[in-house]
Amino acid sequence: MRKRSRATQKPEAVAGNGLLDRRLFLKSGGAVGAALGGFAIPDFAKAELPIEPWMTSVGPNPLPYDRPSRFEDKAVRGAWASRTNFPGVGSLRTPHHLLTGTITPNGLHFTRCHTGIPDIDPDKHRLLIHGLVKRPLVFTLDDLSRYPMQSRIYFLECGGNSELLYDDKPAQVGVMRLCGQVSCAEWTGVKLSLLLDEAGVDPKAQWISAEGADGAGMTRSVPLSKCMDDAFVALYQNGERLMPSNGYPMRLFLPGFEGNMQIKHLRRIRVAEGPTMSRDETSKYTMTRADGTSSQFNFSIEAKSVITQPSPDLMMKRPGFYEISGLAWSSYGRIAKVDVSADGGKSWAPAALQQPVLDLALTRFRLPWHWDGRPVVLQSRATDASGYTQPTRAQMVATRGRWANYHANCIVSWGIDEKGEIKHVYA
Amino acid sequence: MRKRSRATQKPEAVAGNGLLDRRLFLKSGGAVGAALGGFAIPDFAKAELPIEPWMTSVGPNPLPYDRPSRFEDKAVRGAWASRTNFPGVGSLRTPHHLLTGTITPNGLHFTRCHTGIPDIDPDKHRLLIHGLVKRPLVFTLDDLSRYPMQSRIYFLECGGNSELLYDDKPAQVGVMRLCGQVSCAEWTGVKLSLLLDEAGVDPKAQWISAEGADGAGMTRSVPLSKCMDDAFVALYQNGERLMPSNGYPMRLFLPGFEGNMQIKHLRRIRVAEGPTMSRDETSKYTMTRADGTSSQFNFSIEAKSVITQPSPDLMMKRPGFYEISGLAWSSYGRIAKVDVSADGGKSWAPAALQQPVLDLALTRFRLPWHWDGRPVVLQSRATDASGYTQPTRAQMVATRGRWANYHANCIVSWGIDEKGEIKHVYA
Repeated sequence: MRKRSRATQKPEAVAGNGLLDRRLFLKSGGAVGAALGGFAIPDFAKAELPIEPWMTSVGPNPLPYDRPSRFEDKAVRGAWASRTNFPGVGSLRTPHHLLTGTITPNGLHFTRCHTGIPDIDPDKHRLLIHGLVKRPLVFTLDDLSRYPMQSRIYFLECGGNSELLYDDKPAQVGVMRLCGQVSCAEWTGVKLSLLLDEAGVDPKAQWISAEGADGAGMTRSVPLSKCMDDAFVALYQNGERLMPSNGYPMRLFLPGFEGNMQIKHLRRIRVAEGPTMSRDETSKYTMTRADGTSSQFNFSIEAKSVITQPSPDLMMKRPGFYEISGLAWSSYGRIAKVDVSADGGKSWAPAALQQPVLDLALTRFRLPWHWDGRPVVLQSRATDASGYTQPTRAQMVATRGRWANYHANCIVSWGIDEKGEIKHVYA
Repeated sequence: MRKRSRATQKPEAVAGNGLLDRRLFLKSGGAVGAALGGFAIPDFAKAELPIEPWMTSVGPNPLPYDRPSRFEDKAVRGAWASRTNFPGVGSLRTPHHLLTGTITPNGLHFTRCHTGIPDIDPDKHRLLIHGLVKRPLVFTLDDLSRYPMQSRIYFLECGGNSELLYDDKPAQVGVMRLCGQVSCAEWTGVKLSLLLDEAGVDPKAQWISAEGADGAGMTRSVPLSKCMDDAFVALYQNGERLMPSNGYPMRLFLPGFEGNMQIKHLRRIRVAEGPTMSRDETSKYTMTRADGTSSQFNFSIEAKSVITQPSPDLMMKRPGFYEISGLAWSSYGRIAKVDVSADGGKSWAPAALQQPVLDLALTRFRLPWHWDGRPVVLQSRATDASGYTQPTRAQMVATRGRWANYHANCIVSWGIDEKGEIKHVYA
């Protein structure tokens, strides 16, 4: 192995424990070589590269519908938890520790379901709009497909995502189990206001009730104002028809609202004066306050972020240069800033945000880092366009109590020890 | 079926044969109802919806890696053409007539391959940078994964996409066969300039030669200026590792350049004074001019567009409202404008562009349309930020000749007859 003469030209840290300037890699030449010094290993640079079997043979033809390499079998949705008495109830989460960017591939978008995945024949599926309307309407998928569409890149998050952060002790899990019930895709569909306008909404109406065609008959009430603003009936996910576990053949989409309201397999919209008080918004999806009372209809989730690399289930193999990378999002507008700390919150450095930063979409942040091999605690802290900043865990629990269970959005801490092992910690 | 009293309030057309104003659906109430009049069918609006079997049962658990519904089996990549003597040679194209939005899902991104799909073990794969550099370097996938990354939404197009447009007679094919060798994804990887800076490029160097680890050893020369500008080594596609047919575990990405240069399964970058004159840039991928000479190193493809709905393989079932939708792209910057004609180019109306419009990404355009049931010819015409506008087919052939074969970018015409059948025509 050849030594680098420039390996000692370390760029200055901008915050504790080796956080480097986010603009470092916009510079050219010297600074970059120095930052990476000793990292890329020229172990057989002048020798010939080995000739592998796939270089001297003809491979199989490509698949009509491509799928990942067999070597990527760890990049799957996990953490399903179905109790014996309740088949089909649980969630499969996005393995964000193995992904990057902002778009979640359709195979790996998280799902939360209550009676498994219905195998819906799209030709038999119907959407009914009725209740306080002048003209009740029924749509086939074919009908809806002729309507004007819009496409938007939006995140989707389960209201229960990160619920383990309310636990008194840090759950020994990784980013998939802790924060994997959020994903992001380009959704295409028909504005709900267009369909409601066509049905002719009664001036007395203030809410709708949306019902799914799954076995659970999942039902949630939504304020009419949201329906007339940016809600839509989504038919496509990243360009192709919705995945079965994400609402095929159509789902309600309510940008920024908690996921369970965005009814999958949407079959019915009933326009009404008040909310329905369905099972799914009375016995479930309410937030228990510290005093034992419940808060109902908690639509939007406050700003959140999490470092995806490094994170538990990964490993720091040796000291040296790394890129810290993660995701930030907020139901209250676009992400304005993400700060990163490598000393448990004592000092912070602003991360670079992947452009364009879009409203209500996952935002990727990145920051160069030189790890000296000593124990550190990594944290990220998002601020959204409203000026709101993620609370510490202590602040979140002080405000919401320990039994809130939903909308957990505090700062997440990863502790790294001198062996390079990464664990979820409270700091 | 109930009659609509407002069905006669038709909005005024803004161009021939029923093209409507792109802002129509930003308005509320009356205009919208009128535009859709007679379209959505309230065939059993007051009756109960049928109860289907999937509504009264528990479905199977979701899959660790999701895949489309079994009812979407037509939405696959097609038009593979491998000759018996040349196994593994051909392309599978994106079925754009069944997709919408701008992101192509990973399962359906087009692929062009020369020796099938290599089954590469990522732990054995190496990337060598050598030639006119101070420090030859070898990278494992693991090494590269620690480098600073960037994510960008870019289209990727085969230089031979739409080659049938050079044929004297309009090929009787649909949008997948004619224009399906372009797709768009969020690509993530390491800037090539960073790696070249670390290797230390000799001031004499002007080109690189990039080589793939497929059986064909696909090799292309790229000007060093592009490598130092926006080129990168892509490791991820829409957040997950590259698909096997799109270069797993790493590919060269050259934003806007023709696809064959963006070497898949990248194993070697040789820095040199001049181009390599490889087989893939001498006997192939040159453009034959009308006088029989060839034009070499044609990197960027001029502005293009195509209407994806309606298009051949689809069908107009009845007169009435439709949304015309399609894709536009250019290697010379972002799309500035797309015009649509329903009378074979006599009159044009500007389409709405899906926001945000990104540099070197597919751009979705949409325009409301009322089809009166008579024969029409639909066309789209893109203009990019450089001011360049797509030529007619006659203009393209006059400029390039009939044997150019690559970079076909003329206006595409779909003829619709009174039965609602849609065919590729020259107009």
